[in-house]
Amino acid sequence: MIRVAIIGASGYTGAESVRILLRHNEAELTYLTALPEGCGAVEEVFPQFKGRCALQIEPLDIGKLSGLADVALCCLPHKVSMGFVPKLLDAGLKVIDFSADYRLKDVNVYEQFYNVKHTDTANLARAVFGLPELFREQIKGSVLVANPGCFPTGAVLAIAPLLKKGLIETSSIIVNAVTGTSGAGNNPSSKFHFPNMNENLFAYGIGTHRHMPEMEQIAGDIAGCDVRILFQPHVGPFDRGILSTVYCQPKKNLSNEEMSKLYNDFYTDEPFVQICKDAPAVKDVAGTNYCHIFVTCVKGKVVCFSAIDNLVKGASGQAIQNMNIVFGLEENSGLK
Amino acid sequence: MIRVAIIGASGYTGAESVRILLRHNEAELTYLTALPEGCGAVEEVFPQFKGRCALQIEPLDIGKLSGLADVALCCLPHKVSMGFVPKLLDAGLKVIDFSADYRLKDVNVYEQFYNVKHTDTANLARAVFGLPELFREQIKGSVLVANPGCFPTGAVLAIAPLLKKGLIETSSIIVNAVTGTSGAGNNPSSKFHFPNMNENLFAYGIGTHRHMPEMEQIAGDIAGCDVRILFQPHVGPFDRGILSTVYCQPKKNLSNEEMSKLYNDFYTDEPFVQICKDAPAVKDVAGTNYCHIFVTCVKGKVVCFSAIDNLVKGASGQAIQNMNIVFGLEENSGLK
Amino acid sequence: MIRVAIIGASGYTGAESVRILLRHNEAELTYLTALPEGCGAVEEVFPQFKGRCALQIEPLDIGKLSGLADVALCCLPHKVSMGFVPKLLDAGLKVIDFSADYRLKDVNVYEQFYNVKHTDTANLARAVFGLPELFREQIKGSVLVANPGCFPTGAVLAIAPLLKKGLIETSSIIVNAVTGTSGAGNNPSSKFHFPNMNENLFAYGIGTHRHMPEMEQIAGDIAGCDVRILFQPHVGPFDRGILSTVYCQPKKNLSNEEMSKLYNDFYTDEPFVQICKDAPAVKDVAGTNYCHIFVTCVKGKVVCFSAIDNLVKGASGQAIQNMNIVFGLEENSGLK
Amino acid sequence: MIRVAIIGASGYTGAESVRILLRHNEAELTYLTALPEGCGAVEEVFPQFKGRCALQIEPLDIGKLSGLADVALCCLPHKVSMGFVPKLLDAGLKVIDFSADYRLKDVNVYEQFYNVKHTDTANLARAVFGLPELFREQIKGSVLVANPGCFPTGAVLAIAPLLKKGLIETSSIIVNAVTGTSGAGNNPSSKFHFPNMNENLFAYGIGTHRHMPEMEQIAGDIAGCDVRILFQPHVGPFDRGILSTVYCQPKKNLSNEEMSKLYNDFYTDEPFVQICKDAPAVKDVAGTNYCHIFVTCVKGKVVCFSAIDNLVKGASGQAIQNMNIVFGLEENSGLK
Repeated sequence: MIRVAIIGASGYTGAESVRILLRHNEAELTYLTALPEGCGAVEEVFPQFKGRCALQIEPLDIGKLSGLADVALCCLPHKVSMGFVPKLLDAGLKVIDFSADYRLKDVNVYEQFYNVKHTDTANLARAVFGLPELFREQIKGSVLVANPGCFPTGAVLAIAPLLKKGLIETSSIIVNAVTGTSGAGNNPSSKFHFPNMNENLFAYGIGTHRHMPEMEQIAGDIAGCDVRILFQPHVGPFDRGILSTVYCQPKKNLSNEEMSKLYNDFYTDEPFVQICKDAPAVKDVAGTNYCHIFVTCVKGKVVCFSAIDNLVKGASGQAIQNMNIVFGLEENSGLK
Repeated sequence: MIRVAIIGASGYTGAESVRILLRHNEAELTYLTALPEGCGAVEEVFPQFKGRCALQIEPLDIGKLSGLADVALCCLPHKVSMGFVPKLLDAGLKVIDFSADYRLKDVNVYEQFYNVKHTDTANLARAVFGLPELFREQIKGSVLVANPGCFPTGAVLAIAPLLKKGLIETSSIIVNAVTGTSGAGNNPSSKFHFPNMNENLFAYGIGTHRHMPEMEQIAGDIAGCDVRILFQPHVGPFDRGILSTVYCQPKKNLSNEEMSKLYNDFYTDEPFVQICKDAPAVKDVAGTNYCHIFVTCVKGKVVCFSAIDNLVKGASGQAIQNMNIVFGLEENSGLK
Repeated sequence: MIRVAIIGASGYTGAESVRILLRHNEAELTYLTALPEGCGAVEEVFPQFKGRCALQIEPLDIGKLSGLADVALCCLPHKVSMGFVPKLLDAGLKVIDFSADYRLKDVNVYEQFYNVKHTDTANLARAVFGLPELFREQIKGSVLVANPGCFPTGAVLAIAPLLKKGLIETSSIIVNAVTGTSGAGNNPSSKFHFPNMNENLFAYGIGTHRHMPEMEQIAGDIAGCDVRILFQPHVGPFDRGILSTVYCQPKKNLSNEEMSKLYNDFYTDEPFVQICKDAPAVKDVAGTNYCHIFVTCVKGKVVCFSAIDNLVKGASGQAIQNMNIVFGLEENSGLK
Repeated sequence: MIRVAIIGASGYTGAESVRILLRHNEAELTYLTALPEGCGAVEEVFPQFKGRCALQIEPLDIGKLSGLADVALCCLPHKVSMGFVPKLLDAGLKVIDFSADYRLKDVNVYEQFYNVKHTDTANLARAVFGLPELFREQIKGSVLVANPGCFPTGAVLAIAPLLKKGLIETSSIIVNAVTGTSGAGNNPSSKFHFPNMNENLFAYGIGTHRHMPEMEQIAGDIAGCDVRILFQPHVGPFDRGILSTVYCQPKKNLSNEEMSKLYNDFYTDEPFVQICKDAPAVKDVAGTNYCHIFVTCVKGKVVCFSAIDNLVKGASGQAIQNMNIVFGLEENSGLK
């Protein structure tokens, strides 16, 4: 049994990781930490685990951690994570990091978008971007996996086959996405106050969302050239899910048959990516680690749709998928 | 035109009052006040009023107010209101007060449930309880109307005919109610954070809800004797509405026909109370000042159902209905 | 008082028209019709009108209608409407038609997208497209107004100033929209069954939605040239509202200041269009006839956001706005 | 591996059973049947299983079934089930039946409430009521388990300790419950059409709900005397969950400490029943097989709250819990 610690367990991604690990046959939760205000018995912090998990969430004690766990799911926020990851690695653990701190390879871009100096560039250099469908081989041998952002996961999976084959213009991609509210985290705010958010839908992060450079970096890795993406997120009145609608300019005419074959071939061995024959729905992937994709031509454009659960394939599920790969477990352990 | 001020305009009942008054043919908004953090142009504080209301929400200036308004809708919270109502009355305005400060006639009960000393017992003594269907005559000549709580409005209207006729036991009434989330006000909190409240339903205020003594007082006034009510509120994942399900023990057998006739007669001239032939639905009254009621016998009990919008008939709509009565306007002005 | 009939009153747009007309000071409902299965007392067909409207919904009797009403709001479905509108006009009424039958000036396009032969091309020729912000002068003298589709209303208002001034490429406009579920009408179906639609979001009508040619026609009228629009609708788990996110390619660099001025000037006298300083939210326009618009530059594109209530500005509210214009009433009567 | 067939797999309880069994380590799905209109590949009937389940849903072939499965989860509707269960038993399978056909021991009560003649009284006599917390021993050796209704599960678990100890009056129990919409099944209807059900809440089945006699029977078995229950269900705008609020008259004064001890002792070895220190919330049990209970005294009454997921502990989860017991598997296999 792989022994798993969760660092920063008091938020939604922490809870989702607990939920998945309770069903995992080859891994067990052994240690959970949070800031003092998030500590306590798991079943008191998260009543949904009453009778299901006897652990305490405790303040982090690195010495204790090193004897208790083989891997850390590090659910700390951006900017905070890079202060802890080196310690986790030094303690001999492998790390799956949920923050953006190890995703952006270009430190300047990181520092511009996150408005802070990067303090752990050494580990940044060796971190692997944890999108298994594209980087599984690198993940296998890694000690530090940067778990992707939720929006980049959905958007990049939606267009990866086209990018890989060089079939679309890389200067005019538009990613229009709608996320559920759990993406905002568990900190109450006026926008996400139920009577304000219910029956509502609006755009945010216009031109400034931090997942935009992340998408561009990964898309560029796949395409082998610079990729320019206009990413516009929206939030709607539901808990889980991201629907990405991606508008691309094909370099030449593509038939729906060609694209369908391209996508089915590209993802043929991928357990968690399913190519659909019609528009995917977020409810069909909610609570699962699956990504549903549909691609079609409309009026000379290629339109790609993808649906994921932002907390699962967009966060905790993908992290555990990465953990499974790192440790050579069955890739869908805990994720069925 | 009656000139209306709203004191404490930055919350949900303030916004709802603005919404109603914009459609009122015989009254006009002239002055809105709030604490400094709630001030600003109405259309910035409440974007739904963009282009619809050119007023500013300002800090209260009693001198200015006295020249600008004939009546104040006082939307301040419990305990705060009684510090301002005397000043509003002294400034020559009539007052419709939304708080509990002038509802409970027994100062001891007030002080016990609200855990504060009552500082304006003189006005408390002359305040009229603003449930028009039961106290219209007193409201007509009043300068200070205590606008009822949302739960008492729904519950008391549901059983008033039975209480008035002495047809039910007054020691064993159970009021089970489910409210929408707007009843919690516009202050963000963990319980009402969208990802927590959505898809959720739970009980609260078990044995302690402050609307329980208010219900008992008004029910007692109607029945002419002490009434004992077990009131259990719940909150569900919707914006507006309260569904009250009231379980009563009849003193003698009552047929559904008798009860139907009793209710139709009792409310025959009431524009805002409608007796239904089946269970009422909160969506049918949402956004309106109406109360839908259904009453029936089940297994020897009388079960009364009522539905209201907690922000309209349970707050701002009823306040404006009271205002219309006080000033002799058409009772449904602004409330069609 | 203008006397108003509603033809096809048993659906959501019929109910919404009733709701608005109950508050209208210069118009009164006099006659409502539906298919036999939709007939009955208004307050039984729509319990929300219990005690608020004493009319019956009856099978259409043209003779009776001609004596009872000055104007018909014709809420019949596409293809059905053109069978009735000539009779309504012959009976001497002015007609505001909610269907698509009189919107598409090019009969070939209509017949291709609606898959039926147009049977009333004479009236089609004289029908005016009822988007008051763009065609108010023509509407004034009209006897037949084709009330716009909900999506075209939101999308076209969002980009009209840019089209009018020739500032954007007209061959590459992408309209990404999310609508609430009331747009689907009141006919139960599996997709809109609550347990399926709740917590869900998906795209539909991919490349085939009938509002696409309507948008292109009106946009072309404004631009004075052919306009090509890729329109992709989605539906989300809320009742009311359409958020349109429109991606355009500017012909030259445009600053946010220029665009803000352009939009504010263009809509300066329009009561129902409000230019916002940030992304609009559907909840702020729900239940109102307002359209909130925000426009900005992102990565070399112009992105325009608009929010409307699909049942009000996208249907019944705009119809009554048109009616007010046709009869010379205050344009916002009933719509405050 | 236990081989499991699902008879009537095309509805919500069928899908939920599939979801659970995909995670079960000691059981595997081998055969799924439905009426012809519900047949097809599992992943086409339920897109959420795309890539997760390669089975077909087929018309029932008893011969085929007998070679393929050890147990049948029979998800057929009331009245239909009793036509098939004898055949399933004859084919040598053990049966967990989801319908009411084998729950009500008194044939007269069954025939009165379900308005049909019972055609399989022989098997009715030997069927065991599948509420493991109360009847685990009988379930162990059973070939036919009548899986309880969702409301009886929640309500009976909430009061069983009090009934067992004879602490409450058995003639005046009131069960007020609110269910999510999945309880209505997957057949579209006007009441459950999203734009009607969303933001709504209403009572139904007033005095007539079929789960009332079922509650009374089981409560009577526990209490050892006749029990009379007034059961009033409501439905609210969420997918999953039942919150039961049960009002009881204690025979003598009970302290909260006594009751807390009573409940903790009674359920001490029960993995799926958790005694809470405050009101339970449906979201905390959604997607799980857990029942959260809180009990307290209010104004001389005992009020018991319980929360379950109607599709899991109220249907498919409990069925698989029963299956696990029948076959001597770990009771929480598939249900972690």
